[in-house]
Amino acid sequence: MRIALAQLNPTIGALEQNLEKVKEYYQAGLERKADLVVFTELSLPGYPPRDMLNYKGFLDKEHSLITEELMPLTAKTGIPILIGANHRQGGRLYNAALLLENGAIKSTQLKTLLPYFDVFDETRYYTACLERKIEMLDGIPTAVTVCEDTWNDMEYFNDPLYDSDPLQGLFAQGARLLLNLSASPYHYGKHALREDMLPYLAKKYNTAVIYLNQVGANDELVFDGSSLVYNNRGELLYRASLDQEELFIVETEALFKPASNIVPPDRDDIETIKKILELGTSDYLAKTGFSKVVLGLSGGIDSAVVAALAAEALGPEKVLGILMPSPYSSRHSVEDALELAENLGINYRTLGIEKPFDTFISLLNEGAGPKMDLAEENLQARLRGLILMQVSNREGYLALVTGNKSELAAGYSTLYGDMAGGLAILADVRKMMVYELAHHINEIHGKKVIPERIITKAPSAELRPDQKDEDSLPPYNILDPILELYLEMNLSPSEIIARGHDEETVRRVVKLVDTSEYKRRQAAAGLRITPNAFGAGRRMPIARGFEYF
Amino acid sequence: MRIALAQLNPTIGALEQNLEKVKEYYQAGLERKADLVVFTELSLPGYPPRDMLNYKGFLDKEHSLITEELMPLTAKTGIPILIGANHRQGGRLYNAALLLENGAIKSTQLKTLLPYFDVFDETRYYTACLERKIEMLDGIPTAVTVCEDTWNDMEYFNDPLYDSDPLQGLFAQGARLLLNLSASPYHYGKHALREDMLPYLAKKYNTAVIYLNQVGANDELVFDGSSLVYNNRGELLYRASLDQEELFIVETEALFKPASNIVPPDRDDIETIKKILELGTSDYLAKTGFSKVVLGLSGGIDSAVVAALAAEALGPEKVLGILMPSPYSSRHSVEDALELAENLGINYRTLGIEKPFDTFISLLNEGAGPKMDLAEENLQARLRGLILMQVSNREGYLALVTGNKSELAAGYSTLYGDMAGGLAILADVRKMMVYELAHHINEIHGKKVIPERIITKAPSAELRPDQKDEDSLPPYNILDPILELYLEMNLSPSEIIARGHDEETVRRVVKLVDTSEYKRRQAAAGLRITPNAFGAGRRMPIARGFEYF
Repeated sequence: MRIALAQLNPTIGALEQNLEKVKEYYQAGLERKADLVVFTELSLPGYPPRDMLNYKGFLDKEHSLITEELMPLTAKTGIPILIGANHRQGGRLYNAALLLENGAIKSTQLKTLLPYFDVFDETRYYTACLERKIEMLDGIPTAVTVCEDTWNDMEYFNDPLYDSDPLQGLFAQGARLLLNLSASPYHYGKHALREDMLPYLAKKYNTAVIYLNQVGANDELVFDGSSLVYNNRGELLYRASLDQEELFIVETEALFKPASNIVPPDRDDIETIKKILELGTSDYLAKTGFSKVVLGLSGGIDSAVVAALAAEALGPEKVLGILMPSPYSSRHSVEDALELAENLGINYRTLGIEKPFDTFISLLNEGAGPKMDLAEENLQARLRGLILMQVSNREGYLALVTGNKSELAAGYSTLYGDMAGGLAILADVRKMMVYELAHHINEIHGKKVIPERIITKAPSAELRPDQKDEDSLPPYNILDPILELYLEMNLSPSEIIARGHDEETVRRVVKLVDTSEYKRRQAAAGLRITPNAFGAGRRMPIARGFEYF
Repeated sequence: MRIALAQLNPTIGALEQNLEKVKEYYQAGLERKADLVVFTELSLPGYPPRDMLNYKGFLDKEHSLITEELMPLTAKTGIPILIGANHRQGGRLYNAALLLENGAIKSTQLKTLLPYFDVFDETRYYTACLERKIEMLDGIPTAVTVCEDTWNDMEYFNDPLYDSDPLQGLFAQGARLLLNLSASPYHYGKHALREDMLPYLAKKYNTAVIYLNQVGANDELVFDGSSLVYNNRGELLYRASLDQEELFIVETEALFKPASNIVPPDRDDIETIKKILELGTSDYLAKTGFSKVVLGLSGGIDSAVVAALAAEALGPEKVLGILMPSPYSSRHSVEDALELAENLGINYRTLGIEKPFDTFISLLNEGAGPKMDLAEENLQARLRGLILMQVSNREGYLALVTGNKSELAAGYSTLYGDMAGGLAILADVRKMMVYELAHHINEIHGKKVIPERIITKAPSAELRPDQKDEDSLPPYNILDPILELYLEMNLSPSEIIARGHDEETVRRVVKLVDTSEYKRRQAAAGLRITPNAFGAGRRMPIARGFEYF
């Protein structure tokens, strides 16, 4: 049997547009003589559709496109479609894989394990299916599973999230092929996990494994494709693109014999993160109808890296940097920002904030000069935010937020100031990794497109004379590991200290994180690259006690 | 038996502070000769603790306060405590009611029905308990339930959310008293539901009912107390305060005989909504450490109502209104705003935005005059937001957002402009209800504290000459009912049209709502008074298709 697998990039909620894509790839599958064409989890709604699922009319429309468009196709061609879809049954909603054949739904496989952690809310919408059966695909007994159903092996995972493992039952029924329809977003470490766990399953059950993933970004989530095919020895036969749509063919015969070529292991390194951030950026623009971006160029490393990523993702001609020096900006910052813009070939303008700053100081301080307080630091950041938003509103640029995760975590940023914009590319990238990205960008360019001084100078917001980030924050090489333990591993302050971190610093960092929740509540969507990004992945109260635990 | 019931107002995550409150009310119960003192759902963490539950250290601390502080108290006094708490068992977390007696946990009642809809995320944290048993309280077989477990009667509700009803089993075991520990936030219509459903259960099962609710606000959610006591005839014996903590005593004897005084039915009217918004405001301040608020006074109805509510909630001396006229402000707006401030007795200042506006126009338009485009309308709103935030940052005021739900829904507001601030009091109040509130406020004051002209003039943002809201939006009496159907009842556009609304208008409204999701993603926390407020209650993608369904 020739199975065609379509790794597609849907737009959430664009049912008709996604249908066109499915039909196009189905046609391509037919042209490549496929006996079956397979699509990812929730192919027509895109994943995750979130509260669009609360609209019965939305589900009705998806259903009608399946029954009136896709099912007739399979009758006409004789070639079945296996597709992830919403499925209503007995007044409940299921996340399902539907096998469409000869104009009918030949069978349905309903999802059992519904992720509810991190960014996932499936228990909000779906009922879990408790009984599972194998599917015969051209005589091959197949465990057709939807995403999470493959991810709860009780031996592989030390602390499985769910009490049951649907695979156990399916393989007890004699499955020889595991076919998983996924929409699994990227975070670092996930490639390694997939490419360790899936061959483990192949060997454990003597099964071939086809893992088909969604590709492309939807708001914060970047789906990283990288669909995988293993033979029943756990040898990797194929890995699909990280960031492109594609259709690939699997000859089932090849799944049950030694590999002629084993694909080398994946390197989930800084280059992968770079590509993920670029994909997240270009897809956010494409799916919200923007074609160009504007950002502030401060001469600092964050805006430099954002400019470089945006230039790579969109083309430098689509990127506009604005230099907005204040009375406290250093001369080298302006020089560095200009050099960066020239190196990247992006457009730039200079709109200094001295005059609006003076006007406001005069208004707010009743004619007196600057008081040099924190409010006036915020004022400078907000004047810049205001300029970016004016250019955005008037000229149709999407404003990019340049702040990194360390700042966002510690509240070292100004609401409506440097936090203003539509998409925060580095919102889940800690400062130390921003440096890694900068070095990597220069390395792949083979020259210092990000000027050396931007990388080596001490980080500063330049909102008062001689200001340094370290006046307000622990050094980033101290801060970042504490943030990782507190935010990504959910360790308590006392547990973090027990791992050898300085008690006073830990208390200070935790306090900074906890008391700046109100800022993050109003933060722009930020691309997710860790298992616990801010946003939907971390749901914290604002008004709360700040007791130590 | 004398049962003391404590309707308390916890602060989320303030375990030690909430413990002090519990101990204080326990002591008060002892003084009033109680045989048992009962507290609400998740008393020490406060409800909802959200992702604080992902910290094992947080759960450890709650547990140690229960075992080291509360349990010993019950040993010392001989009087048991029934309290809502997190409970870990077999590696799983449960939302439980713990009966603490003689220094030990005498029994645990685990929650079965875990709300996952709207603002609720309990399936994210908790495991559902499948088997339930009755509790003997001084010889009375009692169905001790936690919140939702009382709310799934299969006959009462047309479309029950869950497949099982824990009460059925508990009453089959012979329960004669239903004791429900809740943390149930207000939305309009909920009082009527409670006071219809609970006496229904009393009669159905011939049971007395004690419903104990949390009071006070936590971010968006306002818990409305109003704890209830019914005898086994379904007669209402007691209703606790809507907005205050209290301890009340129930003599169980009185629960099983005819009432001597039946409490009259609740009127969940505009006065309740006013009180809820005031409680939400004062609690948000108290729990975030603010004591005073600043807001822009435009001379329009939204800011007038917000100023009046804040003055009532906090005292007029804690409210600072700022008049920020622009070149396009009408003279009557300034007059009306001043009259309002005088009537309410709040503080006010005038900081016109003409000069900063001119400076920015000159900077952005390269010396030319205003272009009178949308970007310049946004600019004015943002200059005002900037002034409010400076006063907030410098002088320690919380900035209140004055926009209403109709605007927020339709995207008729400026990010970082009129949307800037820490708390949006009217974010879930549609424009037509803002008018109702204004009339009601004048009625209870017995005079027009909100000047008549503010109520009668056509709504305008005054960002260009002769601008009216109706230039950009359908009239509010047309818009609001469509918003209610689309946002609160989750009807599809086609279903809304089928109810008789104009097709073109419905399409226009739905498009406005859908395409302004990016603004709401960055909106301030807003007090919730409907079953489907923006924020955690409506989780929508930004980048999405805008197809009609």
